[in-house]
Amino acid sequence: MDRVIGVLGGGQLGRMLTEAANRLNISVVTLDAEGSPAKQINANSNHVNGSFKDPTAIRRLARDCDVLTVEIEHVDTEVLEELARGTGIRNDRNLVKGTKVKIQPSWRTIRIIQDKYRQKEHLLGLEIATAQSLPLEDGSTGELEQIAGRLGYPLMLKSRTEAYDGRGNHPVRSASEIRTALDTLRDRPLYAEQWADFQAELAVMVVKTEDDATGDWKKATLAYPVVETVHEDSICKLVYAPARGVSCTVMQEAQNLARRAVAGFWGKGVFGVEMFLLRDGKLLVNEIAPRPHNSGHYTIEACPISQYDAHVRAILGLPIPEGGTRLTTPDTHAIMLNILGGARPDTHLIAAQEALSVPGARIHLYGKGDARPGRKMGHITIVASSMNAGESQIEPLVRLIDQIRAERKHPSADRSTSANASGSKLTPSERRPLVAVTMGSDSDRSVLKAGVEFLKELDIPHSVTITSAHRTPSRMFQFAQDAAGMGVKVIIAAAGGAAHLPGMIASSTPLPVIGVPVKGSTLDGMDSLLSIVQMPRGVPVATVGINNSINAAQLAVRILGATDDGVRNRLERYLADQERTVVVKAKRMESVGLDGYDSKE
Amino acid sequence: MDRVIGVLGGGQLGRMLTEAANRLNISVVTLDAEGSPAKQINANSNHVNGSFKDPTAIRRLARDCDVLTVEIEHVDTEVLEELARGTGIRNDRNLVKGTKVKIQPSWRTIRIIQDKYRQKEHLLGLEIATAQSLPLEDGSTGELEQIAGRLGYPLMLKSRTEAYDGRGNHPVRSASEIRTALDTLRDRPLYAEQWADFQAELAVMVVKTEDDATGDWKKATLAYPVVETVHEDSICKLVYAPARGVSCTVMQEAQNLARRAVAGFWGKGVFGVEMFLLRDGKLLVNEIAPRPHNSGHYTIEACPISQYDAHVRAILGLPIPEGGTRLTTPDTHAIMLNILGGARPDTHLIAAQEALSVPGARIHLYGKGDARPGRKMGHITIVASSMNAGESQIEPLVRLIDQIRAERKHPSADRSTSANASGSKLTPSERRPLVAVTMGSDSDRSVLKAGVEFLKELDIPHSVTITSAHRTPSRMFQFAQDAAGMGVKVIIAAAGGAAHLPGMIASSTPLPVIGVPVKGSTLDGMDSLLSIVQMPRGVPVATVGINNSINAAQLAVRILGATDDGVRNRLERYLADQERTVVVKAKRMESVGLDGYDSKE
Repeated sequence: MDRVIGVLGGGQLGRMLTEAANRLNISVVTLDAEGSPAKQINANSNHVNGSFKDPTAIRRLARDCDVLTVEIEHVDTEVLEELARGTGIRNDRNLVKGTKVKIQPSWRTIRIIQDKYRQKEHLLGLEIATAQSLPLEDGSTGELEQIAGRLGYPLMLKSRTEAYDGRGNHPVRSASEIRTALDTLRDRPLYAEQWADFQAELAVMVVKTEDDATGDWKKATLAYPVVETVHEDSICKLVYAPARGVSCTVMQEAQNLARRAVAGFWGKGVFGVEMFLLRDGKLLVNEIAPRPHNSGHYTIEACPISQYDAHVRAILGLPIPEGGTRLTTPDTHAIMLNILGGARPDTHLIAAQEALSVPGARIHLYGKGDARPGRKMGHITIVASSMNAGESQIEPLVRLIDQIRAERKHPSADRSTSANASGSKLTPSERRPLVAVTMGSDSDRSVLKAGVEFLKELDIPHSVTITSAHRTPSRMFQFAQDAAGMGVKVIIAAAGGAAHLPGMIASSTPLPVIGVPVKGSTLDGMDSLLSIVQMPRGVPVATVGINNSINAAQLAVRILGATDDGVRNRLERYLADQERTVVVKAKRMESVGLDGYDSKE
Repeated sequence: MDRVIGVLGGGQLGRMLTEAANRLNISVVTLDAEGSPAKQINANSNHVNGSFKDPTAIRRLARDCDVLTVEIEHVDTEVLEELARGTGIRNDRNLVKGTKVKIQPSWRTIRIIQDKYRQKEHLLGLEIATAQSLPLEDGSTGELEQIAGRLGYPLMLKSRTEAYDGRGNHPVRSASEIRTALDTLRDRPLYAEQWADFQAELAVMVVKTEDDATGDWKKATLAYPVVETVHEDSICKLVYAPARGVSCTVMQEAQNLARRAVAGFWGKGVFGVEMFLLRDGKLLVNEIAPRPHNSGHYTIEACPISQYDAHVRAILGLPIPEGGTRLTTPDTHAIMLNILGGARPDTHLIAAQEALSVPGARIHLYGKGDARPGRKMGHITIVASSMNAGESQIEPLVRLIDQIRAERKHPSADRSTSANASGSKLTPSERRPLVAVTMGSDSDRSVLKAGVEFLKELDIPHSVTITSAHRTPSRMFQFAQDAAGMGVKVIIAAAGGAAHLPGMIASSTPLPVIGVPVKGSTLDGMDSLLSIVQMPRGVPVATVGINNSINAAQLAVRILGATDDGVRNRLERYLADQERTVVVKAKRMESVGLDGYDSKE
């Protein structure tokens, strides 16, 4: 793999890119300050010391490379264009006149993306939904007032250039805030953006494998899973992969939107696409990064091919198999937590030190030396077989990070007190149901109560609803068809009489369906039992005893436990308790005798 | 994490150790030739160029380090002892007299292990089972004949020192081979070892976290999972994690044996323990490496803390949480395939190139430049949710590696022809059953036939047996209790009459149990159905229709499919086929009418 990649920028993204290239024995040379994170893990003697904005340094870097790429979009695209065209090379004695250098992704892409308003215009041209935006020409209060008249309050005033990690954004909630916002962002080219009322921020890493911008997006791109990003102080704090509580349909839409957006740019490589999922379910693209992205760090552990590996392969034209950008197994869940610089230069090391004791925490420190407050110093990734398992593993670290942040924002509060003072109570995340419980009629609810209580006792995320086979057939089909995609693993369906619900659900899902025969007013439940258990070959219903919802719930837990150690351990503890209860009763009966035994004791 | 580790040796193990240290921002300096694999990914300016056997170079390395460790045991332990004791330091002007340097693991450990016969004696002293061995004093044919009289033929003649990757071993099948064996290994200190008739080679990576050699092995060590190693030409070829077809009990024994063995050495760090699982089920320790090991490469992707990360932490006294050395999730399976040098210096790159197109293949190339035949140039790890899934992913790469080997061993055969000529048919591995089918009596077998056929059709690994609740109660309990530990995910139990089998099995396992009521000679199967379905609260049996084993099998597949995409896809294809069959029949009936319809057509 005898290729040389030149990277503009040697921060953490360049470092992790280098790590991936190292494993493939692909040479990387980096342009950035001496000793920058990426250079530390790469003994190549051809690195260039200097700024990735300096044309001369960029030309020097290009001399030794087959392809140039970026880990940051705020670079000089004039010199990249000149190198790609082979025109301006006479400006530098180091390059032979006329030599062309490949730039991936294209300088055109980088130039458009580095100006966030031009990026928005470009996306509009591609018919990609984004928040409505208007540029400021003179940056006067009058101009912004006029724009606010069109966009409404609140709005977001943004710098068109050099904006990242929340720097360059200022909210404007009313006319009275216009002055402050313009003062804060003075001397920068600005635009105003309509406020996005989102329920979640999502992101998708997309790999573009073709040079063209007009190609078929399905052919030109591959998508990583849809993740949920949580920002704090406008900086990414947490990433959940896959996104929590987002339906399959929205996941698919988000991937397609991201792929369509990226397909409209030039050149190869990975792109980070940040999106808003609005309260009405609509998706808007927020912004695009033409490089590996913080929201894709989780791919190092959670996908066969990491975003860095994919970038290396894409820009060199090496194969990326389908399946390489999925989560490693269907049960892979990952959570990424950023470690930001705290109030003191070494606070981030406290977080890393703590993470050493957390089972499952995979630590990445970036070699940045002393921290500046809020600077990205490292990250931690947890991989688990369920989001719940991952969340409970990472919880102590999130708490610590919250304390470090509190200390950073209120330097007077020291960590020991802020731990209690801030309370830093983690909002329990919305957990996707693993068991979906449904019944034919609300009159079945008393039968299901015991089972649902058992699911609660074992802390199994579940949903409960009514779907009648005979009264709401289409609702029932929709329920059955959506379940697997929503992350449900088992369905419990209860019905009485000519009990068709469990069997009909089983015919519309590949998931295991557990049927609870409900005893009606006649026939002692035998009608329900036989309607549920005697299914034709090919469509099984796991039938439990009449009215025995607790066994349905137990069975669901056994099914989950077959592939989830946490659930199985809880079940085994429960079974041991149950055994103990019987043994206690037995001892009591042995001592007091049959007549003296009171079952209520 | 302001610590400096000095590593003797800069090969692939040192390189992957450096990778782990890089992520923790721990400095590493390496002693080995300039540009060696470990140095390539570490821009530290304090590396020492030279041999890890050269005392002066080792002393120079020690100058800058908090702790010295090794990636190869064939080092000069005299100078390590001298550094640890702080005695011989006056020999070198670079070291301040009296400075002591930590060596991890201890020089005593390395000294014992580097002489394989002393290692065996040491293990014997610890009461660790090993193959019986006898040293050669003068290396004469007479002496070896006499030893063969005691050990029997075949035996293995081994070099006591400088032996690795099969170099230094020679089998002696009869007296006539003694001369050749002695000639091949001439000028080396030798010992003879009794032949181990093994069914599998297992290995366990153990982390030792205490300095002492006499401590409590449970406190002083942590174990990684038991893996299966497959050797070819005495070099590791494949590693399966966890080991295939090995019972829970043996797994536990192997981990304990490995931990006890490692606890008997001095110092901290990871140790690779290679074992034989004999045909009679007994375990013998084959040999121990006082360092990261080829059989532990899989931990990079498959465990929260890799063996390299664990080594860094152990030698620096940093925490390693319990759970960090387990497989990431209960469903994690990994296969590691070594890429060895072929007949030409670039053959290994063909394997890596091919792996780029294999979904799930994670590629590690070691930066060794041109290959020598048989040299370890890189490796590939596949992580999957089942061993079967992993095996089918890696199969084309194993085939290619087999071809490269054939070419290396028979340079005349070129790859294109050897692909066909050698046939290189992969022995399908023993697949662990996911579904265990059992019945109360052999008379139930005709009922179960359709279900078992369905499992075969969907390629679900399964086992079939008879366990009668009433005639073989203890066998039935054993079956139920062992199932989960053997990797079974679902049990199908069929019984008739007073059908107690499914319910009794359900009471002795946390796994989901599917019950098939078998229709007996009286009562039309209603006795069996009610005996199975009407279980008490707390012990569910997923009951299907009378005699409907195909639904039991289908249900088992749905349960597996809930967490296995491959299985679910196969099931969905099957269901689609089934739907098509009915639609075809419907069309036919619509066209020929009810009277003209022949169901056998």
